[in-house]
Amino acid sequence: MYKEIAYYDGKTGTPDEVMIPFNDRSHFFGDGVYDATIGGNHVAYLLEDHLDRFYTSAKYFDIKIPMEKQELGKLITELLQQVEGETHFVYWQVTRGTAPRGHAYSKDMQGKIWVYICPSKAGNPKQGMKLIVRPDTRFLHGNAKTLNLLPAVMGTEAAVDAGADECVLHRDGYVTECCHSNVQIIKDGMLITHPDDNLILRGIAKTHMTEACRRLGITVIERAFTLEEMYDADEVIVTASSCMCQHAVEIEGKKVGGKDPETLKLIEDEVIREYLEYTGRKTLLDE
Amino acid sequence: MYKEIAYYDGKTGTPDEVMIPFNDRSHFFGDGVYDATIGGNHVAYLLEDHLDRFYTSAKYFDIKIPMEKQELGKLITELLQQVEGETHFVYWQVTRGTAPRGHAYSKDMQGKIWVYICPSKAGNPKQGMKLIVRPDTRFLHGNAKTLNLLPAVMGTEAAVDAGADECVLHRDGYVTECCHSNVQIIKDGMLITHPDDNLILRGIAKTHMTEACRRLGITVIERAFTLEEMYDADEVIVTASSCMCQHAVEIEGKKVGGKDPETLKLIEDEVIREYLEYTGRKTLLDE
Repeated sequence: MYKEIAYYDGKTGTPDEVMIPFNDRSHFFGDGVYDATIGGNHVAYLLEDHLDRFYTSAKYFDIKIPMEKQELGKLITELLQQVEGETHFVYWQVTRGTAPRGHAYSKDMQGKIWVYICPSKAGNPKQGMKLIVRPDTRFLHGNAKTLNLLPAVMGTEAAVDAGADECVLHRDGYVTECCHSNVQIIKDGMLITHPDDNLILRGIAKTHMTEACRRLGITVIERAFTLEEMYDADEVIVTASSCMCQHAVEIEGKKVGGKDPETLKLIEDEVIREYLEYTGRKTLLDE
Repeated sequence: MYKEIAYYDGKTGTPDEVMIPFNDRSHFFGDGVYDATIGGNHVAYLLEDHLDRFYTSAKYFDIKIPMEKQELGKLITELLQQVEGETHFVYWQVTRGTAPRGHAYSKDMQGKIWVYICPSKAGNPKQGMKLIVRPDTRFLHGNAKTLNLLPAVMGTEAAVDAGADECVLHRDGYVTECCHSNVQIIKDGMLITHPDDNLILRGIAKTHMTEACRRLGITVIERAFTLEEMYDADEVIVTASSCMCQHAVEIEGKKVGGKDPETLKLIEDEVIREYLEYTGRKTLLDE
């Protein structure tokens, strides 16, 4: 069993063993897209959904994934079997290919598949998150999950510096998403969540949480909400495949949420139920 | 002598020989900045200017360059001596360092230096460029020269597909720059060029061309100009360290420029004079 596993273009090993050719286009352009999910009980959670999004991201940027969806799913699943632990971070990406540095690319270039899997932990829904807020300065292709992540790196680092867990981004006062998660609010018993346009990534956890709300009879309104609405919300919910569904207790040092714990718990329980059913786990958190 | 040379963190070889660790942060975030210039007569043109900009880009994103400016300049110069040819593409970058994938980074992480040098050609000032136009969808950190280049890749590829040389970007009808060069216009004997704000990269070729204009008594106006002004300009000039200073003859299939060849030639001659003097070459183009 591996403590963590790395894969690149047919080669498998530890991250120390697997080396990447100098001319991989990730090196000069961040020229690739990725996806990631949480593994539980050595099952990659909602793998089909993540693969669908992954192929859509690649197609959006005209990157050729060198294998079929089913074959890639099999590869990820096989690699996940080889890593120690109960809960995992399951990550994969495709880069456009290898070629001497130049912006333009050859249309017949074949992509390179990368995988990285390591032990991880699910977010504890009981643990409230602290958030900070920054302007959203990112490019206008937020719908694709790309390797052009410098603004997300800087926002996350600012959160860490402030002793917070995540960074909420906004455009002219309208919340888009966080640096590596989506954010939504509960107000008057309804869930308000940003529409899946080009300003945000359509989170798989977000999609499944809104579906959970619909099953529960909770009205879902897809529209951008303002920073003021977020501060004033009954609850603030952060979703990501890695942390599932957590609520915020503090934003920029101000107390938020805590005004509709019943609706929050209904949603959290339904989200966790789906995860346990899919993975065959007994509990969300490791013993 | 090498046909082309690659360098990563102390290791030198051909691009096929130099391999990169799986955990270099360029792989997951495009987490790095770069600079590049043209080499003539095995001299890296305006190396000090490019190094100044490189260290500024790195500082902007809190990336630690693991050597002093002078030492890096010496490294680049020594590598340039080892590559065949008269004119070179001289490229270098720093990535934030190596660590298991995670957005946040350790403050004491040391950057990794990369260099790539290969034979190249200067742009022929007599050869008119064809351009296309696309919306500028990039992030709002255009002042730093980063590895987050997907929009520039897609714009360049669109230009190639259209049989053109470069792609002009605009925000709401205002020209910013091209995908890997700056663009400016001559109108009524004056040079109009985008101010060096966060929407464009301050091109070293642009800076030196505007300085050439000032020496020549040509008024330089730093302001954003519209697409309409560009189509209607007396001349359209594209500058980049790799191509120096070239003029456009066609944009989106429409004829442009050609109305002030005297001013254009004055500027081009002065730009080339500076290059020849700096590098000690006799001619801009290889024999």
